[in-house]
Amino acid sequence: MLKRYLLSPGPFEVPPEVLLEMAKPVFHHRTPQFKKALGEAVEGLRYVFRTEGDVFIIASSGTGAMEACVANVLEPGEKAIVVRGGKFGERWGGLCEAFGAEMVPLDVEWGHAVSPDRVSRALKEHPDTKAVYTTLCETSTGALTGVKAIGEIVGETDALLVVDGISSVGGVEFEMDSYGVDLLAVGSQKALMLPPGLAFIGVGEKAWKKIDATKGRRAYYFDLKAARKSAAKTDTPFTPAITSVMGLLKALEMIRDEGLEHVWRRHDALAEAARAGAVAMGLKLFAENPASTVTAITLPQGLDGDALTKLLRDGYGVTIAGGQSQLKGRICRIAHMGYAGPFDIVTALAALEIGLKELGHDVTLGSGVAAAERVLVSRRDDWARRS
Amino acid sequence: MLKRYLLSPGPFEVPPEVLLEMAKPVFHHRTPQFKKALGEAVEGLRYVFRTEGDVFIIASSGTGAMEACVANVLEPGEKAIVVRGGKFGERWGGLCEAFGAEMVPLDVEWGHAVSPDRVSRALKEHPDTKAVYTTLCETSTGALTGVKAIGEIVGETDALLVVDGISSVGGVEFEMDSYGVDLLAVGSQKALMLPPGLAFIGVGEKAWKKIDATKGRRAYYFDLKAARKSAAKTDTPFTPAITSVMGLLKALEMIRDEGLEHVWRRHDALAEAARAGAVAMGLKLFAENPASTVTAITLPQGLDGDALTKLLRDGYGVTIAGGQSQLKGRICRIAHMGYAGPFDIVTALAALEIGLKELGHDVTLGSGVAAAERVLVSRRDDWARRS
Repeated sequence: MLKRYLLSPGPFEVPPEVLLEMAKPVFHHRTPQFKKALGEAVEGLRYVFRTEGDVFIIASSGTGAMEACVANVLEPGEKAIVVRGGKFGERWGGLCEAFGAEMVPLDVEWGHAVSPDRVSRALKEHPDTKAVYTTLCETSTGALTGVKAIGEIVGETDALLVVDGISSVGGVEFEMDSYGVDLLAVGSQKALMLPPGLAFIGVGEKAWKKIDATKGRRAYYFDLKAARKSAAKTDTPFTPAITSVMGLLKALEMIRDEGLEHVWRRHDALAEAARAGAVAMGLKLFAENPASTVTAITLPQGLDGDALTKLLRDGYGVTIAGGQSQLKGRICRIAHMGYAGPFDIVTALAALEIGLKELGHDVTLGSGVAAAERVLVSRRDDWARRS
Repeated sequence: MLKRYLLSPGPFEVPPEVLLEMAKPVFHHRTPQFKKALGEAVEGLRYVFRTEGDVFIIASSGTGAMEACVANVLEPGEKAIVVRGGKFGERWGGLCEAFGAEMVPLDVEWGHAVSPDRVSRALKEHPDTKAVYTTLCETSTGALTGVKAIGEIVGETDALLVVDGISSVGGVEFEMDSYGVDLLAVGSQKALMLPPGLAFIGVGEKAWKKIDATKGRRAYYFDLKAARKSAAKTDTPFTPAITSVMGLLKALEMIRDEGLEHVWRRHDALAEAARAGAVAMGLKLFAENPASTVTAITLPQGLDGDALTKLLRDGYGVTIAGGQSQLKGRICRIAHMGYAGPFDIVTALAALEIGLKELGHDVTLGSGVAAAERVLVSRRDDWARRS
């Protein structure tokens, strides 16, 4: 018997309330019942994204939302600045390439965030840039980008700011409109407390202008103009993932009940506890400016990171993530997004301590958990209830 | 948002596999399908109870099974020795009283177990004793009774040994037949990993002789002779709790897959970790000889135990139990039964540390968890898997 914990940066654990909602019998989508649900879900996402703009719900992984943010926006040969500081920044690059855009890569050392100055300089060097693509939280490194500062810079140009908020929005403090984000891609299986299967796209006014002006057609399933046309009738162009949308409604209700600012504070407190725990057990944090949804931890030299995450998952029942691409085997990543509580942090750190010990690394058992508990005590009202 | 943990000595958390099994559509019980399930469930319970005797499944709380073990066995005025070392020992007394038996109480200080010698002396003083009633684990104190030694003593007399194994069987090392237990009462919501609602009664040969010889009738719903008659046709005298039985089958499958001896070792390791944690944070264990399904911890003088368990439950989402009757407010009880894993212990201890701190008690944060982790490391193969 092995009790399972899913503490990876997507998918993450889903509240039983949401799972139960999704276990209800399927009903038809061309009905007043679904129209009402869809309208409420879009309103709820506007609340979470902090936008007065349009929000679309599509049945796809987060990458589908990213594709929509490229295919609808850039004509072949048009210029895009792409911040690449990890696997998901590189994905923006791959999409730009796939759709024939001219990419100006801003490569950043993994674990670091791009400086707003660098974006500013690139925009001055390339005044014909149509869009700047970046990630809010780079899931592969846990690094947080200063999107607000970048938004101020991009906002002074004709370029769009396009943000991958897949593993962060709904957890990290973020405001689409006031930060000047024109296009936003978000996934369901992270801070939005759903299984994978839904993606969300936020589209602001400035983005629509560019989308409407863009010639040719490189999107059918991910066509935002088709989505807008259907949305005007509170409908979807293609069959929506009905049960996922019903689950989303429940998740959004839970976020509203807690209050978005409290959700942000809870993530921030849990992240602080996770970081304090890692440092106290003698490990280094990988990201310079870490996001509050995922903590990337540099593993000791000589330790096989893949063996560690496999041991935790198959031996102890605790799924955290290892490193991807060039970080494979070198880091581990503990997520604390969406349906995450203080005892997930305690569990992940205890599992990490026991696992490091089993693999022969010298760690003081309990040292990480103790440090995490001290943070939890000091930030008590950010995660616990007052009676 | 508050993630919930149910770590009380019944109900305890139920595996999702069992919950899903119980969520399937109800079918009819007078069918080959249910007959097959019932037969397999009884076989599985025989495996867990370590008995070749009869086992009955009834829809009731554990107290229903206890009532069956009194009402079917004792005529009014017949003598029963009743070990009373806690709330559940007292319940045996209450049942004997309700059915007019003459009770010889063996009162034991709460937290202690009766000595086999004392049972032996009582039997010599009262050679007309028809049954000895005791608990295996006294849930209210966490104390374990040496049933095996008592079984040897009672086995030399005509009296029956009747054991309340409600919060222990399936977790604590126990063998009904070889220990000489004649009647056994077990509940579903403890080590058997089900919600409350089912109870189980084990009946050995010696018990049947007394039951068959007992005059008058004091049981209808709990009539064991009626149950035996139905069981001969793999049936039940009254409508069985169909979905609960299907859940039981799944739980029994999980116990068989792990292997009963490993289940015992897992409980033993988790209990050792819980106890080490409590002691390391400067607290005292309440039970002299603690059972491996529940750890009762004496709280610091002046600390309001009810406020503590309420804070953990309503403030942090972690349900552990307080004290009952004379122990109200003085102890807390952490259960580790059935669907319990190492990170439940870590969670309970971390919550206890944070809660004690919040209530102003001087505790070194992380000290209990560290001690628990050291036990978990040393007993790794009792709870973790080898790949």
